[in-house]
Amino acid sequence: MSAALLVVGSIALDSVATPFGNTADAPGGSAVFFSAAGAILHAPVQVVGVVGADYPLDALKALEARGVDLAGVEQMPGESFRWKAKYSYDLSSRETLETRLGVFAQFRPKLPPKFRDARYLFLGNIDPELQLCVLDQVKDPALVACDTMNYWIHSKRDLLLELLRHIDILMVNDSEARELSGDWNIYRAAHWILARGPKLTVIKQGEHGALLVHPDSVFKVPAYPLQEVFDPTGAGDAFAGGFMAHLASTGDLSPSSLRRAMVYGAALGSFAVEAFGVQGLAVVTAADVRARVRAFKELVRFEVEADPP
Amino acid sequence: MSAALLVVGSIALDSVATPFGNTADAPGGSAVFFSAAGAILHAPVQVVGVVGADYPLDALKALEARGVDLAGVEQMPGESFRWKAKYSYDLSSRETLETRLGVFAQFRPKLPPKFRDARYLFLGNIDPELQLCVLDQVKDPALVACDTMNYWIHSKRDLLLELLRHIDILMVNDSEARELSGDWNIYRAAHWILARGPKLTVIKQGEHGALLVHPDSVFKVPAYPLQEVFDPTGAGDAFAGGFMAHLASTGDLSPSSLRRAMVYGAALGSFAVEAFGVQGLAVVTAADVRARVRAFKELVRFEVEADPP
Repeated sequence: MSAALLVVGSIALDSVATPFGNTADAPGGSAVFFSAAGAILHAPVQVVGVVGADYPLDALKALEARGVDLAGVEQMPGESFRWKAKYSYDLSSRETLETRLGVFAQFRPKLPPKFRDARYLFLGNIDPELQLCVLDQVKDPALVACDTMNYWIHSKRDLLLELLRHIDILMVNDSEARELSGDWNIYRAAHWILARGPKLTVIKQGEHGALLVHPDSVFKVPAYPLQEVFDPTGAGDAFAGGFMAHLASTGDLSPSSLRRAMVYGAALGSFAVEAFGVQGLAVVTAADVRARVRAFKELVRFEVEADPP
Repeated sequence: MSAALLVVGSIALDSVATPFGNTADAPGGSAVFFSAAGAILHAPVQVVGVVGADYPLDALKALEARGVDLAGVEQMPGESFRWKAKYSYDLSSRETLETRLGVFAQFRPKLPPKFRDARYLFLGNIDPELQLCVLDQVKDPALVACDTMNYWIHSKRDLLLELLRHIDILMVNDSEARELSGDWNIYRAAHWILARGPKLTVIKQGEHGALLVHPDSVFKVPAYPLQEVFDPTGAGDAFAGGFMAHLASTGDLSPSSLRRAMVYGAALGSFAVEAFGVQGLAVVTAADVRARVRAFKELVRFEVEADPP
């Protein structure tokens, strides 16, 4: 059995309005998008999270059918986590209209024994207290990556800084990196983060792609050119799922492999935004992903001529 | 003598405030940034433009010393073109505080006879009427690229659309492409432009690099990672100068060469923003540019593994 990839994050019911349509109580959340993307490339993907009594468990069964291990998903009495948002006409910004934590407010993750052997760990965007709690229960992870958001940056800054000391990769979007570091220059912000623990910073830039920042180098992957984008929700988590699943499936943490993982992440992010909710990922195969990775190669391909004599 | 590269554009006195300092009546304008960048890679760069009686001609002499041919620069009685702007704290936006056309309002370009043989032509951001007037005077250009701005998109839309029918490349920033096409999706906007004449659309995206859009392909060059940016003024024109000068110096208009020209453009743009005004470009050598082009190669380098058996 190959090395397990574990994710902890939200399992939500999303109600999202875009110029192209709406969803109401559609399955979503960081753990769902991450595992839907990751399962295309790697098994097992183990999920830790919580749902309320009202959650449509069929939606999770679809993930299970694709090799996602839901043994770490608890069902608790009460309401599921709900998120409601509205995107601008050009999808470049969104307004959160409502966040109801529901059962997530009481959730204290307890990993099934077999999950404690996971080698690849993604701490999705939840309370850093819960992220630390999960990290503590995994015995010997080979790689730990972590996401967060502005809400935690402001409300739990000290815990977040504590968490940074124990992870390998912080993976945030550009505005989060700027808020966390207090520096508007994205490269200085990334280095500020590196100075606080992580070996690598990944900066997600939405329609502009993503950066992998190492103390001595920068790698940039653009976003895939899409003439039709329907719903950006979950793109960042699908990115993380593709990134981590590529690393888990190869067991290769070399600099070359990390760069390639960024491209796998960008490919999964691009599939995620081409449909509403997680459904865009349901029909994607590993061969589709590899074809898109090759398309990224063509997107940035150029040859440098020899120096003049 | 190698093929001449001709630019028409503004020769301005810029007063720019950034969080790092201010300039007052500093030499600038599209033709100045373009030729300062282009001259690093190619000679001759021929400039068509106008200055008032008050222009510090010494500043232009510095360009002349670097191989820029100013035979097409007229000096007229009256005030030089002046532009005053203030950047936001993170340099991501700027407010134009004042634009005084001065002698530019009366300017009717008349090319010196030798300029009419130019093979590479860049129509910098000025009134499309003047751009058409210059285009008409060049006998047999191999490549014509053109910039514009929101002001002309709104005030002279018909003339601009007429111009599009006669050029090879429209080179605009993302907001301009969106305003011109009425489409917020940047790839659809680029194709909207392609349907109106140009063979290629170049979309400048500031800190996110630039796109080269062809009917059947897209090439992306990121911006060079800079931890210190002092003044974004002129970056787009320096980009254009690097792009066109690479093509003029090689005489190669193949798809590979156009991609490489995008990287030369991005390299020159990055040098332009590292200092105030055009002075950043004054000390840059062709060897510096080639070294930065190689650094771009490393910035986007990744290997795709073979498909699984």
